[in-house]
Amino acid sequence: MDSIVECVPNFSEGRNVRKVEAIIRSCLAGPDIYLLDAGMDRDHNRSVLTLAGTRQSIGEAALRGIGKAAQLIDLNIHEGVHPRIGATDVVPFIPIQGVTLEDCVHIATWVAEEVWTRFRIPTYLYGAAARRPERRDLEDIRRGQFESLREEVTTQPHRRPDFGEASLHATAGTTIVGARKFLVAYNINLGTTELAIAKSVAKRVRASSGGLPCVKAMGVQLRTRNLVQVSMNLTDFETTSLAAVFEVVAREAAAYGVNIVDSEVVGLVPRRALERAAVQHLRIRNFGPDLILENRLELLRERRPHNCLAMK
Amino acid sequence: MDSIVECVPNFSEGRNVRKVEAIIRSCLAGPDIYLLDAGMDRDHNRSVLTLAGTRQSIGEAALRGIGKAAQLIDLNIHEGVHPRIGATDVVPFIPIQGVTLEDCVHIATWVAEEVWTRFRIPTYLYGAAARRPERRDLEDIRRGQFESLREEVTTQPHRRPDFGEASLHATAGTTIVGARKFLVAYNINLGTTELAIAKSVAKRVRASSGGLPCVKAMGVQLRTRNLVQVSMNLTDFETTSLAAVFEVVAREAAAYGVNIVDSEVVGLVPRRALERAAVQHLRIRNFGPDLILENRLELLRERRPHNCLAMK
Repeated sequence: MDSIVECVPNFSEGRNVRKVEAIIRSCLAGPDIYLLDAGMDRDHNRSVLTLAGTRQSIGEAALRGIGKAAQLIDLNIHEGVHPRIGATDVVPFIPIQGVTLEDCVHIATWVAEEVWTRFRIPTYLYGAAARRPERRDLEDIRRGQFESLREEVTTQPHRRPDFGEASLHATAGTTIVGARKFLVAYNINLGTTELAIAKSVAKRVRASSGGLPCVKAMGVQLRTRNLVQVSMNLTDFETTSLAAVFEVVAREAAAYGVNIVDSEVVGLVPRRALERAAVQHLRIRNFGPDLILENRLELLRERRPHNCLAMK
Repeated sequence: MDSIVECVPNFSEGRNVRKVEAIIRSCLAGPDIYLLDAGMDRDHNRSVLTLAGTRQSIGEAALRGIGKAAQLIDLNIHEGVHPRIGATDVVPFIPIQGVTLEDCVHIATWVAEEVWTRFRIPTYLYGAAARRPERRDLEDIRRGQFESLREEVTTQPHRRPDFGEASLHATAGTTIVGARKFLVAYNINLGTTELAIAKSVAKRVRASSGGLPCVKAMGVQLRTRNLVQVSMNLTDFETTSLAAVFEVVAREAAAYGVNIVDSEVVGLVPRRALERAAVQHLRIRNFGPDLILENRLELLRERRPHNCLAMK
């Protein structure tokens, strides 16, 4: 595939397997689209799909899923502990390979408009696709959930959707569509049972308390392993790499005389996140993507047959 | 491409650009074959090509180059400072992706036999393809070069080629064909001008003096940068990763109060070498290749369409 875009739609159905499978089948009922992961949660009454497709295929795949969810889910009878405002609640597009965040903003914007046009479900744009600063964070859009929003949207102009009328869809509510960078869920385990140390290290590393940019972190206890963990989300691994957080965590833990035991990735990690960690840790001065053999070969294959006479 | 095999043929011509270009064109005159790099050296009077192809294409590409070199190069009138015994001197096959070293042994063995069959050039097998322990190192095969070997081969049974008669080709000599792992040329630069420190660190890290396995290392002066360098070849980055040599060099240099300034990769590095360095440095405990998003997607694409109903 010449480009890879990830899409992680969240649907407000986490109990009826048949309905979730029907939504998955709809998403996958087109070319160049793959299911990387699927999770259902009964308590949240919510499903999260991880789809991968190309720049051309991913938008239609999301639209097929959104359309099917609108047929199967009625928010008026939905209950679950996770906040939600739509049958399809939130749909982020994430650049993986051969596409930029800006490309994903375009895809998200097109999808948001199509959702209104095709299904008469109004939509909001969030994240990098947000058209107003107060809509960058999806929690701000979702405030009050379906039950409050359907009232407020008719009376409060600042809650009006980006596409569609000032009223929600009667059963499917509204959908928040957006673009963001890949989020790496990365945990580092410390050789101590003292939770206070993990909490203190987490505080040092996270952006909100003056640590590294684009890092969220908290300290948690791992009772089964007799360890504590610094549990992190890296929201931009190009700004702050896995190697950068490892270094800070190692240093801050060492101040307590504690070592790093190991670390773990939750879910998937893009190849470039590991490459970037290696290059940064090893301080490779002449690094560029075309230093990697497979990338060089890919470039040559695209240029074929012009490489025949190239001599250094 | 479903598999990637690298081939690095060395030809005994480093002065006549037209002849080298003709050999390159022959190598590339088939499907699924790409030139990653080409180097000519006047003093060595030798050219080194870096080709990439598939399991199916790489052998024929090498054979086309070997055939063309036999037409264009006469070892009787060849002179250069680099030792050589053939118009095509040495041809290693290296697994990159989707193939094993054992696969490359099979390719090398087939090519060695074909070189004799098609061109009446006798061949030796070396490296992982060697059929006798004393032929694992190509320098042992090349001892005495073309001028001595053509005499010895007729009288000394232990110098007899693996394929072909006990006499060399009159003008093309013989060719050494083999298989080996990818060699990463990796240098670490130290913040000092004292060459003795680089030499001492190199001694600690290299396999031959009890350091890390599969590492060759020497200390050299970088006058233009006012630094010294530990210049290394990693002959098996899966046994000893870039992160492992970095760690040892950092520790040994620190014993002299010297820091690592940066490092550099010479030539190309396979993607897996960087991934392995990251995983080792970060101590990722749950790592497997399918934790990488692109690999997971590749697996799904191969299995298509069976992924549709897969639910976790």
